[in-house]
Amino acid sequence: MTYCVGLRLDAGLVMLSDTRTNAGLANISRFGKLFHWERPGNRAIVAMTAGNLSITQGVITALDTACRRASAGEDVECLLNCESMWRAAQLASEAMSVQQKRYRDQLEAQGAGADAMIILGGQREGGAHRLFLLYSAGNFIETTPDTPFFQIGEHKYGKPILDRVIEPATPLPVALKAAFVSMDSTLRSNLSVGMPLDLAVIHAGEMKVSTRRRIEADDEEFSQISNAWSEALRQGFSSVPEVTTA
Amino acid sequence: MTYCVGLRLDAGLVMLSDTRTNAGLANISRFGKLFHWERPGNRAIVAMTAGNLSITQGVITALDTACRRASAGEDVECLLNCESMWRAAQLASEAMSVQQKRYRDQLEAQGAGADAMIILGGQREGGAHRLFLLYSAGNFIETTPDTPFFQIGEHKYGKPILDRVIEPATPLPVALKAAFVSMDSTLRSNLSVGMPLDLAVIHAGEMKVSTRRRIEADDEEFSQISNAWSEALRQGFSSVPEVTTA
Repeated sequence: MTYCVGLRLDAGLVMLSDTRTNAGLANISRFGKLFHWERPGNRAIVAMTAGNLSITQGVITALDTACRRASAGEDVECLLNCESMWRAAQLASEAMSVQQKRYRDQLEAQGAGADAMIILGGQREGGAHRLFLLYSAGNFIETTPDTPFFQIGEHKYGKPILDRVIEPATPLPVALKAAFVSMDSTLRSNLSVGMPLDLAVIHAGEMKVSTRRRIEADDEEFSQISNAWSEALRQGFSSVPEVTTA
Repeated sequence: MTYCVGLRLDAGLVMLSDTRTNAGLANISRFGKLFHWERPGNRAIVAMTAGNLSITQGVITALDTACRRASAGEDVECLLNCESMWRAAQLASEAMSVQQKRYRDQLEAQGAGADAMIILGGQREGGAHRLFLLYSAGNFIETTPDTPFFQIGEHKYGKPILDRVIEPATPLPVALKAAFVSMDSTLRSNLSVGMPLDLAVIHAGEMKVSTRRRIEADDEEFSQISNAWSEALRQGFSSVPEVTTA
């Protein structure tokens, strides 16, 4: 499985993914699921993927190939030259549809799943920073102030803290902490989600990927947050009154 | 869906279930999923069910019918006269197998699911208090000191707090609080789980259902725990250091 969370705050975008993939429990591998495309000053786009790895790699390869052809001078529409973030989401969803049409029937005939999902976010010059969730069918939705985050993969363990904490006005350092805590809860309870993590942050208006880093299992800051959260939960739980009427 | 959690502590058993069932989102009903059988001083058994409601109602009806026939003087083995808790789990799993054989093919032919799960726990005179998890196939497993709790239904939201807090030595009031908090997290994040709740507690060695109560949406104690936990999470989250290196 996978766990990726994307947050769309007033202050920018936070994207955090794990790196574990598995075909059954005995076949566990590490694959990055966070990708970015950037023309600093003009635009920055980040995508995270979940689901059938051959499908999502096909999508990312198609998106990359278009960008390479465009930068070599060909007249090709791609993430780095398209007219809006909405169109960028559409390009990714078109690439998803191509993959689904090519492989879905054969995959299902063999009992495998072709489902895949993508969180795609970014900002281009002259537009707002936006965050989209793309489905296997090629359709997609966008965050709103009511629901400023998307999760894909093993989303349930890490949802309660996001439900409680994240709103559009949440500052980036707090949103990052919430993403880390959400990931930490998922890592603890589900073996199919694993370190290292990939993190990308886009500050609103900067038109660049402000932060892009890999967080290894021994990362000091992540460990500190993980331990502090454990301790806070333990103390918080102690502070809740006990059930006396049972 | 459903959420039920059963805890097997040294001090006894805690069983907590919601009461919501749904066929799609537009067809939501309230059905109790917690059942008990009792011969005070001799034994107390509690079961909670999840999955296809027609299947689980069939199982509970079969178990009840056997008890009624036995108490009417017939020579029938039932939960209230069987020789061990292990045998009680076996009787429930046999009832599950009967239901599965009768309906599974037709259900699946119509695209419906026949899966169902049962948490069954209790204690009889002369034996330890034990907690079992029964699967659709009729097989079952038992808690061990390493894993002293079972969850069925929407188990993911409420698992992190149990993973952190529950161990065999956990006192009953703390275990009850953990069950409430686990249920509260699930209620908040998943619409298919809903109030009221059903609670049963069996104190080790008492051979009776010590507590059996319905917790309505306006229950003062549950609200108090829910609010205190919200506040503790908020404060705990604030106390975790913010991410500064991003």
